[in-house]
Amino acid sequence: MTIMALGMTDRLKPLHAAVRDMVRDEIAPASEEFLAEVPKESRWVYTARQTAILEGLKARAKARGLWNFWLTDSARGYGLTTVEYAYLAEEMGKAHLGAETFNCSAPDTGNMEVFERYCTPEQQAPWLPRLLEGEIRSAYLMTEPDVASSDASNIAMACVADGDDYVIDGEKWWSSGAGDPRCAIYIVMVRTAGDEAPKHQRHSMILVPADTPGVEVLRAMTVFGDDDAPHGHMHIRFSGVRVPKANLILGEGRGFEIAQGRLGPGRIHHCMRAIGQAEVALEMMCQRALRREAFGRQLADLGANHDIIADCRMEIEMVRLLCLKAAWMMDQGDRRAAAPWISQIKVAAPRMALKVADEAIQMHGAEGISQDQPLARLWTHLRTLRLVDGPDAVHRRQVARWELAKHVEV
Amino acid sequence: MTIMALGMTDRLKPLHAAVRDMVRDEIAPASEEFLAEVPKESRWVYTARQTAILEGLKARAKARGLWNFWLTDSARGYGLTTVEYAYLAEEMGKAHLGAETFNCSAPDTGNMEVFERYCTPEQQAPWLPRLLEGEIRSAYLMTEPDVASSDASNIAMACVADGDDYVIDGEKWWSSGAGDPRCAIYIVMVRTAGDEAPKHQRHSMILVPADTPGVEVLRAMTVFGDDDAPHGHMHIRFSGVRVPKANLILGEGRGFEIAQGRLGPGRIHHCMRAIGQAEVALEMMCQRALRREAFGRQLADLGANHDIIADCRMEIEMVRLLCLKAAWMMDQGDRRAAAPWISQIKVAAPRMALKVADEAIQMHGAEGISQDQPLARLWTHLRTLRLVDGPDAVHRRQVARWELAKHVEV
Amino acid sequence: MTIMALGMTDRLKPLHAAVRDMVRDEIAPASEEFLAEVPKESRWVYTARQTAILEGLKARAKARGLWNFWLTDSARGYGLTTVEYAYLAEEMGKAHLGAETFNCSAPDTGNMEVFERYCTPEQQAPWLPRLLEGEIRSAYLMTEPDVASSDASNIAMACVADGDDYVIDGEKWWSSGAGDPRCAIYIVMVRTAGDEAPKHQRHSMILVPADTPGVEVLRAMTVFGDDDAPHGHMHIRFSGVRVPKANLILGEGRGFEIAQGRLGPGRIHHCMRAIGQAEVALEMMCQRALRREAFGRQLADLGANHDIIADCRMEIEMVRLLCLKAAWMMDQGDRRAAAPWISQIKVAAPRMALKVADEAIQMHGAEGISQDQPLARLWTHLRTLRLVDGPDAVHRRQVARWELAKHVEV
Amino acid sequence: MTIMALGMTDRLKPLHAAVRDMVRDEIAPASEEFLAEVPKESRWVYTARQTAILEGLKARAKARGLWNFWLTDSARGYGLTTVEYAYLAEEMGKAHLGAETFNCSAPDTGNMEVFERYCTPEQQAPWLPRLLEGEIRSAYLMTEPDVASSDASNIAMACVADGDDYVIDGEKWWSSGAGDPRCAIYIVMVRTAGDEAPKHQRHSMILVPADTPGVEVLRAMTVFGDDDAPHGHMHIRFSGVRVPKANLILGEGRGFEIAQGRLGPGRIHHCMRAIGQAEVALEMMCQRALRREAFGRQLADLGANHDIIADCRMEIEMVRLLCLKAAWMMDQGDRRAAAPWISQIKVAAPRMALKVADEAIQMHGAEGISQDQPLARLWTHLRTLRLVDGPDAVHRRQVARWELAKHVEV
Repeated sequence: MTIMALGMTDRLKPLHAAVRDMVRDEIAPASEEFLAEVPKESRWVYTARQTAILEGLKARAKARGLWNFWLTDSARGYGLTTVEYAYLAEEMGKAHLGAETFNCSAPDTGNMEVFERYCTPEQQAPWLPRLLEGEIRSAYLMTEPDVASSDASNIAMACVADGDDYVIDGEKWWSSGAGDPRCAIYIVMVRTAGDEAPKHQRHSMILVPADTPGVEVLRAMTVFGDDDAPHGHMHIRFSGVRVPKANLILGEGRGFEIAQGRLGPGRIHHCMRAIGQAEVALEMMCQRALRREAFGRQLADLGANHDIIADCRMEIEMVRLLCLKAAWMMDQGDRRAAAPWISQIKVAAPRMALKVADEAIQMHGAEGISQDQPLARLWTHLRTLRLVDGPDAVHRRQVARWELAKHVEV
Repeated sequence: MTIMALGMTDRLKPLHAAVRDMVRDEIAPASEEFLAEVPKESRWVYTARQTAILEGLKARAKARGLWNFWLTDSARGYGLTTVEYAYLAEEMGKAHLGAETFNCSAPDTGNMEVFERYCTPEQQAPWLPRLLEGEIRSAYLMTEPDVASSDASNIAMACVADGDDYVIDGEKWWSSGAGDPRCAIYIVMVRTAGDEAPKHQRHSMILVPADTPGVEVLRAMTVFGDDDAPHGHMHIRFSGVRVPKANLILGEGRGFEIAQGRLGPGRIHHCMRAIGQAEVALEMMCQRALRREAFGRQLADLGANHDIIADCRMEIEMVRLLCLKAAWMMDQGDRRAAAPWISQIKVAAPRMALKVADEAIQMHGAEGISQDQPLARLWTHLRTLRLVDGPDAVHRRQVARWELAKHVEV
Repeated sequence: MTIMALGMTDRLKPLHAAVRDMVRDEIAPASEEFLAEVPKESRWVYTARQTAILEGLKARAKARGLWNFWLTDSARGYGLTTVEYAYLAEEMGKAHLGAETFNCSAPDTGNMEVFERYCTPEQQAPWLPRLLEGEIRSAYLMTEPDVASSDASNIAMACVADGDDYVIDGEKWWSSGAGDPRCAIYIVMVRTAGDEAPKHQRHSMILVPADTPGVEVLRAMTVFGDDDAPHGHMHIRFSGVRVPKANLILGEGRGFEIAQGRLGPGRIHHCMRAIGQAEVALEMMCQRALRREAFGRQLADLGANHDIIADCRMEIEMVRLLCLKAAWMMDQGDRRAAAPWISQIKVAAPRMALKVADEAIQMHGAEGISQDQPLARLWTHLRTLRLVDGPDAVHRRQVARWELAKHVEV
Repeated sequence: MTIMALGMTDRLKPLHAAVRDMVRDEIAPASEEFLAEVPKESRWVYTARQTAILEGLKARAKARGLWNFWLTDSARGYGLTTVEYAYLAEEMGKAHLGAETFNCSAPDTGNMEVFERYCTPEQQAPWLPRLLEGEIRSAYLMTEPDVASSDASNIAMACVADGDDYVIDGEKWWSSGAGDPRCAIYIVMVRTAGDEAPKHQRHSMILVPADTPGVEVLRAMTVFGDDDAPHGHMHIRFSGVRVPKANLILGEGRGFEIAQGRLGPGRIHHCMRAIGQAEVALEMMCQRALRREAFGRQLADLGANHDIIADCRMEIEMVRLLCLKAAWMMDQGDRRAAAPWISQIKVAAPRMALKVADEAIQMHGAEGISQDQPLARLWTHLRTLRLVDGPDAVHRRQVARWELAKHVEV
């Protein structure tokens, strides 16, 4: 194991500067324009202007060689370490279109990893090249409405062999990105075995093209009232959906294995983007504190504001270091050893970022919760991170079990 | 001073039961239907169905004699004490239309108090009877976009005498209820004197009919993306708005006096309604904890859930008692002595209710932030209470100053 | 059920004023002198000076008729309600000798209640009159070193019938007051039945004179290094301790019933005294904040101090009201209905008081943790309250179970 | 600036293992014996047994080459970086004699740095070699009883030139280590100029041998009742104390410059030792949670204990990384750039360690606050760290000012 180096490498620095500047100078303003363009009705489309904005950004990024940074272990990408990528993810988190501009957005990065690592060339061919080029998008269908999906062994969507096909029935929800008209392929967690099989060998992952007959997008779930169009977190019903057996990934009963492999990097990306958002919120908080006056003083000099600002700075720094350490653990190649670190950041990063965003809102007064500032949207987005990929309680439980296990005599 | 009795009186009990049952059995389900009826576009109207729902509820309440409970010190109402009213407010808080059904909703109750207490019969005549009957609604225009309105001495809207009229220019925002097509009259805080006047004698309150030429509703402010239609928190521009001098309430320079008198009861109502909402959230949390299973156990028996539920119960009880004490202080007739108590609950109640709602959300998983549960809306509504009528920091500052004043030698 | 009146009654006011003034003007300074008199070695005695201080205070209190306030339901005392007594307990909490001066100190009040309510005249005769006069003191022996006593069904001290006697063997610790040379009688929780008996009928309470052969006081437990001499929290070994069968209270197997009856009032007293201590700490905090300067400003005006002071004030008020409500519930006569309230205050009051004391310490700088201020001692005393009579976790668990029970369908 | 490497270097690993093992296997048990040996009276001596224990440990450490690790930038020591030293400090924090065994204890390390960096050979000669050998000890006299020393510009001890001497008058307190009979030399912060001098050039540092006439140790300050003998935090009076002018370090008015240079590393050492103590507390908490049962379950599986353990683990990891980053900043050679990081850890580390210790106490029940466990002593020691070297509020203020300064336009 090499020494724990958490800083930016020399090769990263110019990339980081390029990403940081493009996010700040081009993507952030373009993102505001993009969001303002979402139609009031018929929201699951891209207007011509939206397409122009997004594809323009992507084309510029690609032209500058700023593309697919997430390909951490591949010859085709930059071959960045997870630590290096983490620094970029933080910057990308600072604008709504930050990740997608560089073809680094969820859930596509995780899905592309599944294609890369677990799929056959035949499974890859129709989808992976187009995903890598940013031509199509994908979704990952895991959570179900009728079971506590935080315990993934509860996943119940039926997938039954029938001749050369599987037939799939059931419902998924919170399928992020499935609202996007460009979303062409789903990776779906299904149950392929009964209770007779060992608990973690009952599930499988299978490829289902979005336009397969029997797939019905019922509605968009809303997040504090926001449907996040045209991305969307969709509620989808599968009624007798039939796909070839060849669409099954890796073999029956290996769903958990794939899910575990998929989630680690994605959680790091989520957390680092959350840190980027916390930095945005803290910056806004400080600027407001210096700009605004009440009772004859700058806000900065009133009440507990010094303490609030200091606490936010400290907590951001601590969480960033923890995320970098988790990333470094991933880079050591032992996913089992990295798992407790991933669980830790999954709890710590959203909690911290929510606190910073909440304080930034409070410093802005009523304007902070309004459409005139991005803070309300930022907060509600961050709030979902305490639920996505396992609620806090599940991760705390895991961390505690690892901790206690150190003290159990064997 | 009588003994501090914070319990329900005998005369209150049947009223309380009637309100509680009507909220639970009639108003709560009707509220959900009402909210589902708000049109996607052209939101600042009432559909026929919305009118039928709301007016139906109001008619039934009035027929049962459940009306205008807030008239605490008037011969025309029940003559409830503030403590008694507080118990009703808690119940009314449990449904979106709870308060309006009984003609007890903000900002009308506070505005009607201003009419009752500070206005001449001539000022009352066109508005107060219709407000008391629930025929029209009103708005209270205080906050301005360009100044830190938490320090109300910053209020800047110009109001200049010109012959028999005043001419008003400037902008207000967060004018709650001004989006409602039934909103007919504004009570407006304006600046009538320059810096030569003492700091708290520069402002006045004036009556401005909503349809006065020069009044322009620019837009609805959104609260975490929600415009709260058809009620609305509006951004309004006054351009040369001309009203007769007779519309000025109580005399030039007495705006602060009126504002102080208006705010106390309203804050108690807000806080007690927040407690009602916290009770709703805790009830949902417990039911979910008993209903849902993961890892082979009820949620109730997992993780810190016992502790979370216990803490929520304790904090609700403590805040309710504090609000009742503040109400009782109001009933003693010394508003100056009651003020520190009002500030305390203004901080404590929203903070507590937000915590309970947040825990309830977390217990529901992703469903908790979605349209399938009322919790997200409930949370965002409660979040505004940390800003409305003065942010936490302003009230904490007041509480501290009173506390320190006890120890300053005179 | 009468209306919930939580204020001071007219009859209480002069008593309260007398107690408050005597605590502030006489007992508080005498307490400091008393504590300074405790010898470095041979600590389990009273020096002549200590006796003079304590008995002088008691004599003055008795002469003024300020004595045995805790006799809430007896013809012999004032017949105060629990609510009334609670106000006095708060004042008594403000000085080290506050409670004992009025013969209202733990554990004697609880023990005297056991004598009054559950003992025969023969059992009472040797002890109760002398306890009521303040001539002797008593201890309550419950907690054991070898079992998790927070689950009282674990209590294991053996008590075996042998002819006309019981023979008792085992160890107790944290027997508060058993270090006092005046401590003459123990009430001891013992196990009188085996596993064949129902879980809550295996234990009994028995009277054991402190000088019975076989009783050995092993040592004083220390609380953050403090042995609390000459009161003491003692570790005691029973080796073949033989007492007549007539010493058993109420009958075999009724230990839990007695323990439940004993604990309610005592917990309210503890919590109200903790509130008194919090008031002392807040007062010291404010005075320091006004007196001391740094960086060219009063401490009061630096950092988050306004917010800290305001939060302390709010939390004291909320907890006091909750304790008064719990006391009022006790006064309604239904101990089962009062139990959840007792558990709530048992969690809330020490937590609040510790926070206030900690902030007061911080406001005093290093002086706050030193012998020059009473705050360190106050804090460590309060810290024990999170453990005494059941740790927080046990009470939270109880509160949660009651809350959840409301939602279980029957 | 090199890449931020926060892990253990290869050269550190064997040293770390040697220190870790010696602390755990030899120093920790010897420390308990040492503390039990402190006499009840005449506490400011070393008994023969105490001397044997301590000098035995030191001799063994020296013989193994485990000595003076803190000499980070010297040719004479290991030349460890601050990051490397930090890992050792964490281990040393785990036992009472941990630091002194390796001649790495406060305040000597800081004082030796002052000698090394700022003193002339003549000033060094009588003291530094003996300090480096562990033959004598030293104290650093800064804090004064009569001024808010958190604002060091308040320091008032008079130091007046008189011929070839300075004459010093005033009082210091909290002079840590000055109770030790081996303490031979004081470094004293004094005021050498009046208000006419710039605020940060009024103070100087001067060497005062402990046995100089006029030096009077008045008493030991206690920390939650503990005098920390034979180390001690002493209250000292200087009455006409006369030392040669040659004892002044670096020149008049340079006291602040020296104080700044001295404090950085010391704070990192304090914080890392606090992390070591937090690890001890968490380990004890887990072992207790697995060992003890109540209500038919392991404590580990009751209430919020999983969550508590997980939170403690996460917070320890985050604070450790923050301390390592602060250490790395120190290693970059720019003390001004490192200062905000030092302030951050000064707030974060004691807060975290106190929380972990408090939870460990609670998990142990009443035993946790008693002499049977080291937790109470550990807690009170940690509590002082929120006050030593500047209270939290001062450091938060500094962090906020640096943060706000980023946003002030120049």
